[in-house]
Amino acid sequence: MTGIMKKIGIVGATGYTGVELLRLLATHPQVEISFVTSRSNVGMRVDAMFPNLRGFIDLTFSNPDSDALSECDLVFFATPNGIAMQQTPALLNAGVKVIDLAADFRIKDLDVWSHWYGMTHACPDLVAEAVYGLPEINREQIKTARLIANPGCYPTAVTLGLLPLITQGSIHLNDIIADTKSGISGAGRQANIGTLLSEAGESFKAYAVDGHRHQPEIAQTLSLACGEPVDLSFTPHLLPIIRGIHATLYVKELHKAKASLNLQAMYEDFYSNEPFVDILPEGSHPETRAVKSSNMCRISPHRPATGSRIVILSVIDNLVKGAAGQAVQNMNLMLGFDETTALMQPALLP
Amino acid sequence: MTGIMKKIGIVGATGYTGVELLRLLATHPQVEISFVTSRSNVGMRVDAMFPNLRGFIDLTFSNPDSDALSECDLVFFATPNGIAMQQTPALLNAGVKVIDLAADFRIKDLDVWSHWYGMTHACPDLVAEAVYGLPEINREQIKTARLIANPGCYPTAVTLGLLPLITQGSIHLNDIIADTKSGISGAGRQANIGTLLSEAGESFKAYAVDGHRHQPEIAQTLSLACGEPVDLSFTPHLLPIIRGIHATLYVKELHKAKASLNLQAMYEDFYSNEPFVDILPEGSHPETRAVKSSNMCRISPHRPATGSRIVILSVIDNLVKGAAGQAVQNMNLMLGFDETTALMQPALLP
Amino acid sequence: MTGIMKKIGIVGATGYTGVELLRLLATHPQVEISFVTSRSNVGMRVDAMFPNLRGFIDLTFSNPDSDALSECDLVFFATPNGIAMQQTPALLNAGVKVIDLAADFRIKDLDVWSHWYGMTHACPDLVAEAVYGLPEINREQIKTARLIANPGCYPTAVTLGLLPLITQGSIHLNDIIADTKSGISGAGRQANIGTLLSEAGESFKAYAVDGHRHQPEIAQTLSLACGEPVDLSFTPHLLPIIRGIHATLYVKELHKAKASLNLQAMYEDFYSNEPFVDILPEGSHPETRAVKSSNMCRISPHRPATGSRIVILSVIDNLVKGAAGQAVQNMNLMLGFDETTALMQPALLP
Amino acid sequence: MTGIMKKIGIVGATGYTGVELLRLLATHPQVEISFVTSRSNVGMRVDAMFPNLRGFIDLTFSNPDSDALSECDLVFFATPNGIAMQQTPALLNAGVKVIDLAADFRIKDLDVWSHWYGMTHACPDLVAEAVYGLPEINREQIKTARLIANPGCYPTAVTLGLLPLITQGSIHLNDIIADTKSGISGAGRQANIGTLLSEAGESFKAYAVDGHRHQPEIAQTLSLACGEPVDLSFTPHLLPIIRGIHATLYVKELHKAKASLNLQAMYEDFYSNEPFVDILPEGSHPETRAVKSSNMCRISPHRPATGSRIVILSVIDNLVKGAAGQAVQNMNLMLGFDETTALMQPALLP
Repeated sequence: MTGIMKKIGIVGATGYTGVELLRLLATHPQVEISFVTSRSNVGMRVDAMFPNLRGFIDLTFSNPDSDALSECDLVFFATPNGIAMQQTPALLNAGVKVIDLAADFRIKDLDVWSHWYGMTHACPDLVAEAVYGLPEINREQIKTARLIANPGCYPTAVTLGLLPLITQGSIHLNDIIADTKSGISGAGRQANIGTLLSEAGESFKAYAVDGHRHQPEIAQTLSLACGEPVDLSFTPHLLPIIRGIHATLYVKELHKAKASLNLQAMYEDFYSNEPFVDILPEGSHPETRAVKSSNMCRISPHRPATGSRIVILSVIDNLVKGAAGQAVQNMNLMLGFDETTALMQPALLP
Repeated sequence: MTGIMKKIGIVGATGYTGVELLRLLATHPQVEISFVTSRSNVGMRVDAMFPNLRGFIDLTFSNPDSDALSECDLVFFATPNGIAMQQTPALLNAGVKVIDLAADFRIKDLDVWSHWYGMTHACPDLVAEAVYGLPEINREQIKTARLIANPGCYPTAVTLGLLPLITQGSIHLNDIIADTKSGISGAGRQANIGTLLSEAGESFKAYAVDGHRHQPEIAQTLSLACGEPVDLSFTPHLLPIIRGIHATLYVKELHKAKASLNLQAMYEDFYSNEPFVDILPEGSHPETRAVKSSNMCRISPHRPATGSRIVILSVIDNLVKGAAGQAVQNMNLMLGFDETTALMQPALLP
Repeated sequence: MTGIMKKIGIVGATGYTGVELLRLLATHPQVEISFVTSRSNVGMRVDAMFPNLRGFIDLTFSNPDSDALSECDLVFFATPNGIAMQQTPALLNAGVKVIDLAADFRIKDLDVWSHWYGMTHACPDLVAEAVYGLPEINREQIKTARLIANPGCYPTAVTLGLLPLITQGSIHLNDIIADTKSGISGAGRQANIGTLLSEAGESFKAYAVDGHRHQPEIAQTLSLACGEPVDLSFTPHLLPIIRGIHATLYVKELHKAKASLNLQAMYEDFYSNEPFVDILPEGSHPETRAVKSSNMCRISPHRPATGSRIVILSVIDNLVKGAAGQAVQNMNLMLGFDETTALMQPALLP
Repeated sequence: MTGIMKKIGIVGATGYTGVELLRLLATHPQVEISFVTSRSNVGMRVDAMFPNLRGFIDLTFSNPDSDALSECDLVFFATPNGIAMQQTPALLNAGVKVIDLAADFRIKDLDVWSHWYGMTHACPDLVAEAVYGLPEINREQIKTARLIANPGCYPTAVTLGLLPLITQGSIHLNDIIADTKSGISGAGRQANIGTLLSEAGESFKAYAVDGHRHQPEIAQTLSLACGEPVDLSFTPHLLPIIRGIHATLYVKELHKAKASLNLQAMYEDFYSNEPFVDILPEGSHPETRAVKSSNMCRISPHRPATGSRIVILSVIDNLVKGAAGQAVQNMNLMLGFDETTALMQPALLP
């Protein structure tokens, strides 16, 4: 490799987004992981916790308070909400770029943020500065950003599914329905009865129907994209699989006349230059397994004969394009690498 | 048991609805299974195919053409579509009651039926006579019927979820969305690549988004229930579980004023006398496992803060309330038994 | 029902053996559940925790210290190890029969027990008195016992699989191999990272290969059955399913001449009068799903052409014949009911 | 890339080993896939069948009879048994190297082969010539071979687990027990009732207990490795997961004195130079998920306190080290590439 390797730190690497970052970065030719933290596992080998990394990551967990973080070129926060906002100001001051995989910098309206996350924000100025890390919308700003708010998993699948129609101005903006289903790794690697195999296996349910944190995040992104207020019904469900998000999106066209719109062509055009959005052949039904382990979002728009609704199907791997993969994509942009480095592998099927 | 046991025949008992009928009827105190047919397995012991029935069903598969069927009091058809309509006229003439678990008698409009099922109907008169076997709507007609069209699995979950609002006249009838998810046993016990564990496991997808046979069945039932045309967007999805259907239903209230409607109380009142519909405590999220192996439908209505839609969650076991259990419920009504006989067992959890 | 209903108490009913006891007893015609305890959930409705019981169990959790327990005819302990031995003496003194589903009374050698369970026993006398609740061995003693040590899940599957050969004296007693696999509900309903769907799903592993508590329990039972010391290699594995145990047992015949032994006939004879042991047709491979939700143990003995070992396959539902179902079977015997009451249902398949 | 890309053909690429070959080769920098055949799908785009390959494989399925195959440098047969032996002689004559992922060239004794595979062999000479493609045994011969018999999935896991002890001469060679468990992708991508999610999901069973084709393959390899006859009990089981094999191996040491042997150190030494065999830290229990999607075999030897048997645990991904990955490893050796090219990725966890 020509050139100097960039030094990367990961704070809170014991969760699923953390181990997924490690998996993806392990084969990245332009970075070295120099620092992996976990307050409760200091001194433990990383590959003792995650044996898939044996032979790839030769590190032990360090204390997140260490000054060593400030020697990194870029730090990922794969921490619970509320942690990144405590440490980010010092890191930025030290010239370290930051990508937060949690939600600390996603919501611009601080009252809305506090309502949903139950905290007062520690650094409101940085919320304003942070760039929402969806490259399909903000690629140029990401390249020069110091601080990235990496999007939520559901918001990624839903936003990419709706973006072509939202920006074209052809649908009702206050009557959108996002029926979303997530694999259980989205609930994190915490000891919890509800996500035991014995509880969540061989079953299916909705949750948080009366309100979920990702609803305002999606509404904000879509409103910014089209310049008008957007409201949506957002219903998340828990799938008895490990990885994968499927969003089923229902929108209403403004005028019946619009039925002449060629949905398929419009979606293909819109995303023709995107490396990680794939519009499937007309009439397809994307499967979550077709993106498992991959950074790809696969989409199919439909206009069924009954029901007077356009239906868009959108799938991602919640841990990749919905978290760690998108974070690496953002890192590539921020550090001047090819955007797709370490992210071009076929999905694992079957 | 006092009284004479009724003789029951099952045509096509090698599929999942067939074995589920056998499981439920095995402990029914007022019937004896006298005849189980499978054209391709004549002479094979039933419990050699389904070892769970060892000790309960001491029968071999017979030829469905046998005259012996006409000696039954009641015959279930657990056959592919298009079989029951061939044999039903003769059985009815012989005084045998018939319950068809397939779709031969569900759709009253013969053109619509032929469009979706790709056949010309063999006995249109009986379509007109057949009673749609959803006891929560047609209990009295079922009691005296000769021929029952046992409802589809999705239609059962969707119709029970929508019925209170539909009949009250408080929602838009042409803008209903039914996002439905089914366990894979709904696809039947056929050799098929798409339903292999290696293909459907650890994955999730929509299917038949552009049109599914259950859409006109649901529209017909809801229209009859409210006396007006009903249109709905119907999107089925395939869950990587064996049993269970979850319907997520989105409806729009006619007037904002209606927001004062107490959804929870209205649903509880509507179903207060139904043995197999259970309205969960306010704010609940029914899980499919809470009805696994049981004939219960569990429902929770919600009015989320965002999105301006009422959301109703409805779960059933597709093989029980969505097929064999509802068929036994109908049989109980037709033969004058207590409606709940052989159907009152707690769901299997975990 | 003629006769008086017996009063039943369940201590620690928030785990999987507890809810399974409730499921089975809910339809038992000769008992009423009068008392269900959970120290940490006092006042909560039982069916709020386990919605499958809605309409069947109209109780709230009580405090286990209550005197009310002593008014029961029989009390089940579905508690962690070490609890039953604290409360059992007082209950027995009050004339209450006790069935412990944990391991407090299973091991007769107190040193062995203390070694594996890490406690000093609170009532050694009762260990001596307790009857090991495997009806296939101890049916008569169970009928008159005050105190039953309900067998472990693995020991039930392994012991029933080996019993015919062990008692016949035709195999090497110190070279038995039990390779066992259990569904994850055997690990209980505790918040634990290792049993999350994201950790245990789509994976398989052995555990406790260097020593597991069920090894001495099995060795004790087999030694008592044949009157000689028995040693075995016991390797448990974790299956990514909810219910089911599969034991694959390898034994070596004493003399080659014994190869003339008709294994199939010998097994069928041995268990010909047992209601809950089913020897499958020769050459069968029992599936765990063929006993799911049922109290049946299904067994197939094999003598493969290669390898010089007899191989016995044995399956149970770990929560039924491996725990709550066997406990109800024992209760039926202790209270003078028909042994099979509330336990004769076909397994749930698929 | 310096140098000319080698041309690769894949015959029968519609099964799981085929799509896995495509996934692995898609990112291999020194080969181009020039030819993919499927008799029944001629003209269909490969990525229409396997959407995970969209953007990676821009080919349609060709007819396997085409002369074009003979222009390849190397051809993989990912076909059912009995196909490769028909086409291999012509390809070898044309100077094409061949790797057969099926069993046509694995068994040196033609009578044994015919007994288990039910065919007469079409080219016995090539059976003698073929090199068994387990690099850990035959690395040097593989480098110069024209024809490779790629090992079976079970044989790979079992052989690698036993090799250190077998070659050291410290165990009984006629009393080995291999209790093996395979994910269901091992059964292939064929329409089959037994491998439906509804049949194989949430269940577990042994199969082919009375005899399985992989038993003689393992016995042959172990016998060749130690120079003496080896017999083993081999019991395969079906896991309700997609990928993964777990072998639990029981061996008996020749002399008790050998108990002083440091198993862990011996295994670590034996495999110290192998890139794809990983001996886990002492006392570990390898999980199949720790090798999912990876070419690694992870092993832990144990000497439990009870039972007088050494127990070795060995896991692989049946589609990678057990099939396509090992085939690519062999290809790398045959074509003079670095042995690990395209195979060094961390396993996918979770």
